[in-house]
This record gives sequence, C-alpha cells and structure tokens, in this order.
Amino acid sequence: MANLLTASCPLNISSCSKTGPNSLKQSFVSLPTSLTYRTSNEPLKSLSLNKKNAQRIFTVRATTLQQPETKASSGVDQSSGQQSRPTRVMVIGGDGYCGWATSLHLSNKNYEVAIVDNLVRRHFDHQLGLDSLTPISSIHDRIRRWRSLTEKDINLYIGDVCDFEFLSEAFTSFKPDAVVHFGEQRSAPYSMIDCSRAVYTQQNNVLGTLNVLFAIKEYAEDCHLVKLGTMGEYGTPNIDIEEGYITITHNGRTDTLPYPKQASSFYHLSKVHDSNNIAFTCKAWGIRATDLNQGVVYGVRTNETEMHDELYNRFDYDGVFGTALNRFCVQAAVGHPLTVYGKGGQTRGYLDIRDTVQCVELAIANPAKRGEFRVFNQFTEQFSVNQLASLVTKAGQKLGIEVKTISVPNPRVEAEEHYYNAKHTKLIELGLEPHLLSDSLLDSLLNVAVQFKDRVDTKQIMPSVSWRKIGAKPKTVSA
Amino acid sequence: MANLLTASCPLNISSCSKTGPNSLKQSFVSLPTSLTYRTSNEPLKSLSLNKKNAQRIFTVRATTLQQPETKASSGVDQSSGQQSRPTRVMVIGGDGYCGWATSLHLSNKNYEVAIVDNLVRRHFDHQLGLDSLTPISSIHDRIRRWRSLTEKDINLYIGDVCDFEFLSEAFTSFKPDAVVHFGEQRSAPYSMIDCSRAVYTQQNNVLGTLNVLFAIKEYAEDCHLVKLGTMGEYGTPNIDIEEGYITITHNGRTDTLPYPKQASSFYHLSKVHDSNNIAFTCKAWGIRATDLNQGVVYGVRTNETEMHDELYNRFDYDGVFGTALNRFCVQAAVGHPLTVYGKGGQTRGYLDIRDTVQCVELAIANPAKRGEFRVFNQFTEQFSVNQLASLVTKAGQKLGIEVKTISVPNPRVEAEEHYYNAKHTKLIELGLEPHLLSDSLLDSLLNVAVQFKDRVDTKQIMPSVSWRKIGAKPKTVSA
Repeated sequence: MANLLTASCPLNISSCSKTGPNSLKQSFVSLPTSLTYRTSNEPLKSLSLNKKNAQRIFTVRATTLQQPETKASSGVDQSSGQQSRPTRVMVIGGDGYCGWATSLHLSNKNYEVAIVDNLVRRHFDHQLGLDSLTPISSIHDRIRRWRSLTEKDINLYIGDVCDFEFLSEAFTSFKPDAVVHFGEQRSAPYSMIDCSRAVYTQQNNVLGTLNVLFAIKEYAEDCHLVKLGTMGEYGTPNIDIEEGYITITHNGRTDTLPYPKQASSFYHLSKVHDSNNIAFTCKAWGIRATDLNQGVVYGVRTNETEMHDELYNRFDYDGVFGTALNRFCVQAAVGHPLTVYGKGGQTRGYLDIRDTVQCVELAIANPAKRGEFRVFNQFTEQFSVNQLASLVTKAGQKLGIEVKTISVPNPRVEAEEHYYNAKHTKLIELGLEPHLLSDSLLDSLLNVAVQFKDRVDTKQIMPSVSWRKIGAKPKTVSA
Repeated sequence: MANLLTASCPLNISSCSKTGPNSLKQSFVSLPTSLTYRTSNEPLKSLSLNKKNAQRIFTVRATTLQQPETKASSGVDQSSGQQSRPTRVMVIGGDGYCGWATSLHLSNKNYEVAIVDNLVRRHFDHQLGLDSLTPISSIHDRIRRWRSLTEKDINLYIGDVCDFEFLSEAFTSFKPDAVVHFGEQRSAPYSMIDCSRAVYTQQNNVLGTLNVLFAIKEYAEDCHLVKLGTMGEYGTPNIDIEEGYITITHNGRTDTLPYPKQASSFYHLSKVHDSNNIAFTCKAWGIRATDLNQGVVYGVRTNETEMHDELYNRFDYDGVFGTALNRFCVQAAVGHPLTVYGKGGQTRGYLDIRDTVQCVELAIANPAKRGEFRVFNQFTEQFSVNQLASLVTKAGQKLGIEVKTISVPNPRVEAEEHYYNAKHTKLIELGLEPHLLSDSLLDSLLNVAVQFKDRVDTKQIMPSVSWRKIGAKPKTVSA
C-alpha cells in the first residue's frame, strides 16, 4: 500500500487558508459529497431473501429526502416542556459496528430512524488493507434488504457531521426527537498511528460533536442527545469509578463534581473532550444529553442482523479496530495463539452488542431532562485480559479447538496490574437485562469466528501500532 | 463590516476533501505564509530612540533563519538525563499581550528567544473593528527596536503551529530548550460569538497544541513545554481549588487524581482539552510539561515594554478581548460607568502582567522532570467583580475622577454568588514576588487608561456576545 498520507489531494488545503480564520469552513475532513439518498419505495418482488449476493434490483435515487408525512410532529409536549415519547431517532454513524445494530433495533421497535454516516469507517479499511471478518453489504443494500424484510424504512443521509451545512439539512429535514451519536473515529490504535491520525481523530470527533450540539440548539432544541462515550475516559484510578460524577468532601466542604478523567489515547481523550463540551452546553443552553460511557463491546449477532446475511454486522479482529474479545475468538478459530498484551491484568468493562442496542433504546425511551448532562456507565461485566483468554480457551475446548495464549509486548502505555471497580447500575435501574458472556461466548462469538475463519488475514492480528513509537511523520503501510 | 464568515476564500476548502482523511493537511486555518524572518543586523545609527514613529531605516529580509552559532548546544546534560540550565526559549504567540511581555523579559534575562506567531490576534482586531488602547508597533518594528536598545536579537518565525511543516522547520532550526505556548485564541467571548468561532477556537487551540507536542517528541524530546492554561478550567466548585490534582478518599480507598474541571466557555474548554492531552503525552512519551493555570491578567507596563513606545504592549478593553479590570480602568478614564455583569459576586484570581513574566521565567528556570505534568495556579490575589469596581472607584477619586458602577445583564452563564478559594503556593515557593493590585492600580493601570483615553471607542465597551444567544449562523458585525 502506498504512503497513506501523502496520497493525492487534488487541491492543496493549506493554500485555502489565505484569508485566515474568517475563511473557516466546517467541512474539515469530510467525504466529497453530502448527498441525501432515499431508497426506492418500490416493493420487493420475487426475491429470494436468503440468497447471497442477491441481485440488485433497486435503484438508489440521490435526492433531498422527503419528510415522511406521518409521525412528523412528535417529540415535544409544548404544554409541559417535557419531551413526550420520542419517535424520530437520528443515528449518526449508523453504518458502523454499534450504529448499524442500533439502527436496526430501533427501527424494529417502530422508531422512525435516519442513519447519518459519511462511510469513512469503510474507507479506513481500504486505506489500511483491513476487512471485517463477516462479509458486509453496502449501506444501500442493507437498508433495501431491511425494508424488503420488514416493510420499515430507514432514512439515509450520506455526509459528514463536520460539514455543518450538510448537518443542518439533515436536521431540518428529519426533525429528530433524539440523536444517537456514534459518528466518531472509534479506535485507540488508529489515533496512535501517527500525528496525522491523532489530529484527525480529535478534529473529527470533537468538532463533529460541536456541530451536532449547535445543530440541536439551532434546529431541535428539545432533541435528546445520546452520545457514545467510553469507559476508557476514566482510566484506571485506584478508587471506585462512579457514573460520571463523584461527591468529594475536601477541607470541610462538599461538592459533587465531574469524575476525574485519565484517558490513555488520543481517541479516548477525544471522548473526554466531547463529554466536557456537552456538559457545558447542557448548562449554558439547556441541552438534554446522556453520555453512555460504554465498555468494550463483543459479539456480532443481534435479533435483527440475524434476519438476513445482507444485514450482517461487521466484526473486526485486526490490531487496529479489533477489540480484545473479538480478536481472541478469531485467534482461537484459526489456531493463532491468543495475544495477551503484557501481563494481562488490564481490567475493563465488557458488554454484548445486544446490550448496546438495549441500552441505547433505554436511554432514548427515558430522556434526560432539559439542561441535564446524564452519564451512564454502559457495560455488564468486568474482566481482565487474562480472564478473557482463559474463558476463550475453555470455550475452545468445548468445540475441540486447542487454544494457546502468549504474552506479547504491550504496544500501549497502561497499567497492567491495577484496581478496577466501576459502577454500572443506572441502566439496570432503567430495565437493562444483560446478556452475560458465559452464555454468549460460544453462540455469538466463537462459532461466528469459526464460520468465517477462511476470511481471516492472520497478518492483521498482531498489534501494529505503538503508543511510544508514534511519530510525527505519516506512517506508511506495506501491502 | 461585511459578514465575516462568508468573506472571500479563494478556494473552497470543502472541495479539497475529496479523498477523505488520507488527504488531511495540518494547516487548518493558518495564515497564508510561513515565512521566517530575521531582522537586519546592521547597527542603529543616529536614531532618536524616543521619537515616536521613528523613521523605518531597517530592512526586513525574508530568509530562512540562520541558527546562531553561540549557545546552540545547551539544554540537555547527556550524562544525567536532567535538563541543564535552559537557554533557548521559543515563545509561541510572542506577539500577543502576555507573549510580547514575556519575550522581552526573557530576552532581557539573556535567554535566546524565538517568537513564533501567526499574527492572527491583529487579524481579529481588523475583523471585529477593535483596537488596542495603546498604539502598538508591528512585530518587525518591535524586534528591531528591541535590538537597537539592547543589542539583543529575538528570532522571528511567522507562521501557524497548526501547520506542522512550518512548526517542524521552526523546531529544527531554533532547537528550543523550552517552549512557552501562548499561541491560542484566548478570549471566552470570541469563542461564543457563533458556531464558526467556537469551532475555530477549539480547532486552533487543541490541534495546535497537539502539533506542538508531536514536534517536541520528534525534534526536541527533552524540551520543556510551558503551557498557558487558565484558572477558568476549574470553574467555581464549592470546595477549595488545588493546583492541578486532588487527593480523594472514596469508599475506603485513596488516589490522587486530576482536579475535576468545569469550564464555562468553548475557549475555557479548549484549555481543559489541552491539559488532558498534555497530561497523556507526559505519561506516554515522557514529555516534561508545566501547565500554568493563569488568572485574569491586568496591567500593561513591564520593565521592558516601558523602554520605548515602539515596545508598548497591547491593552484590550473591549467586550470581546478586554479583561474585567482593564475594562474598568478604561471605563473610569472616559467617564463610562463600570459595567458589572449581573450580581458581581463572580470571584476569580488576578495577577499583574509583571508577575506573568516572572512566573513563566520561574517555570523555565525550574523545569518539570521528564514525564512530569506539573500544574501551577498562576495568580496572586482573588477579587470579586464588585471588589474590583470598588477599588477602581477609590483609585479614581484619588485622580479626581468620579466613577459610577452599573449592573448590566450578564452575557455569560456563570454563578454570580459562589464560594471561591484557590490555592496558589507553588510559584511562590519557586520565588515569585507578587506585585499587588493595591500598589499597581494607579501607576500601571488607571494612569495608562487616562493617558490614552482619546483612543477609546466607547461602543466597544459593552458586552456584545451572549452565551445563551450564540447561534449556528455566522454573526455579522456592523461598522
């Protein structure tokens, strides 16, 4: 693969800056087009739903989305100022791993869903020579298939939230009651590849979220922002981790303050920045927001993605986008030793993707109040990396797979033995019914990895990004 | 004045983004040129030093800076790994209010100084129709005058730290032992004008600082970063404010964690983001850093800027860039009532600009250790806005000026009556000898305001930016 960051940009961005800050445009690193698609409403006829690579009989019309006539004025109870039952949900980043599963789940629960996505996650795969373990369809095919199966429409806005003009169009057209914001560069290793990716990550995530906040203030002030944060914002303090806030008594006085954050990558830091920005706008503008500090997500199947192979979710196992448990399952499936980074005492919160979609739905159905910045820790169980390796080893034995574990030098800078006790009761109180790893490991994870093991590119498994060796110069990747 | 944000940009930045993030360039909103100037070394002849508007007899040669032969290899004691006495200081933002005073002070103390500045602060004045109360010379004239008076050179790099290519050139050419980073958009009201200014502020400040961190890692890993933060990062908690960290005992366990932050503008938030980013790089890369959480600075005169009128520092009194005390003094001088925002119980830390330059010098002379993220609260006294108004009223009486005070609706969202007790002992322990307001108010502030009162544009005094009314659309300013 050629040098990624010296790849061709037909115009030199730096040459655009001749007039200084007054020439600021807000599409910093956006996709070229901000088209609004709506898939055809023509009904499906005589199509085998289970046939792989089903013939593409739909046309995609690039038009400005027409506002559906029904359900358009829901959301705000003008008399009380309280939000009535939200029905229109914009899912930013709805083509990604968590976003796609969430979009389908909400659509299945009869929310009117709009996906906003610039599809840059697919672009990263192309640039880095990576691919999902599971074959995934285009967003257009996904949405057409969903409609063909359920007669439910999902609106699609292709564009970048860093482009405020595009975002404005999406907001004024769709009129969301809630915005679920997954639309960020979400890999810690990606943010640690080189200076350019570090800067891109914070630029894209922080400024994109600022735009979302301004769009809510300007066009949908009662809209509830459900923002995906990460448990990684807290780091690994030597005291219990609370949900967003901690009450401190100090020199005889007491206050409840934002829980101190100690993020450990430019990605995790971008989420801390987001949380701080959002908290301010709740206070200053009365924005209603829920910050979902999510743990490490595992699994690929949800009720909806199981309905058809064109609805499959992506499943990342590589050293850049793969999360620990997904990677371990793929390693077990292909006979690669599980790669524990360092001592393996690193402990984090984990959750099944079926619980991600449940949690987001619970947050939407129980919106934050105006001006409230609500923080939920979104995970169900804590494991150390060594514990995960042990669980995968045992699960492998049941399938007749011999699983070995090796320690590899830790590419990250993090404590490898530490205290970890994070609270996570608020979503349980709202009704979350967790899927536990012990029940899911074989069905939703290891079996999937075995099913697709022929698609595994083993050279993508090892860590390729070092926290300490990150350089200023653009990093090149060999084919 | 025409609509600021639709002003001409000869190329459309959004059209540069066709290749997505791989085309990311890091000169986001930079000045057009990154020239490196060095003023002529020709000696001054027969020039009246005190003559205003002295004839410009110097030529400016736009060249790549030549590395001075002397003092070039100081900084790192290779045997111990400790930084020996730092002698080469890069002052980013050295043309601004604090930066200019600091640059002269350090040069006077025989540090080899390089100013890095994109001069955008002067550009903001042009855009918003503002001006410094004191007439200020161009950066080129300032530096020439300094050399003519002291025979000391100040190196000058005109460019934007958001342009990593420029920053790399400045680092490899100058080889700093310490970098003092003032180079940020530093006005809370500016960041609250409109969406574009909010985004610009965080983009410029956060990404510029990321670039500085990468430049240190890549080119000068032993270099000490002295970063200007703000006391506003802490907000107004109901407990004592410590210097950067707080020890918390919670559920029977204890840890020392970053002090919780509650910033109250997009500007203040940008400084919080910076602090979090810097802390991470200290841990991950061994960067040595001092975060100077500075209070509100007042005053205009320092020993060096008093030497000649071409060395005058800027003095802002307008509703966007003017800090409270400077504004009050100007209001008193022109017979305008002092404008207290809301109830006036807002309490903050304050310091004389002569203490700013002292503090920065103390931080440089006593560098942080490798990997240390050190936080100093940089102020000398606390005052409420009402207390300031009272002090200015009394000082006015001594000059025979009748001073009135009015309350105006608070354009900000902030507590107007609150507990405030912030620690500030670390710089005192290093040797800071404070200039107290009671001694400075007449000499360094009110008299200056009276001296230049004919230059006051009274329509710039009232607050023009509302925290609550900020909109997504570009705000226009009438002439």
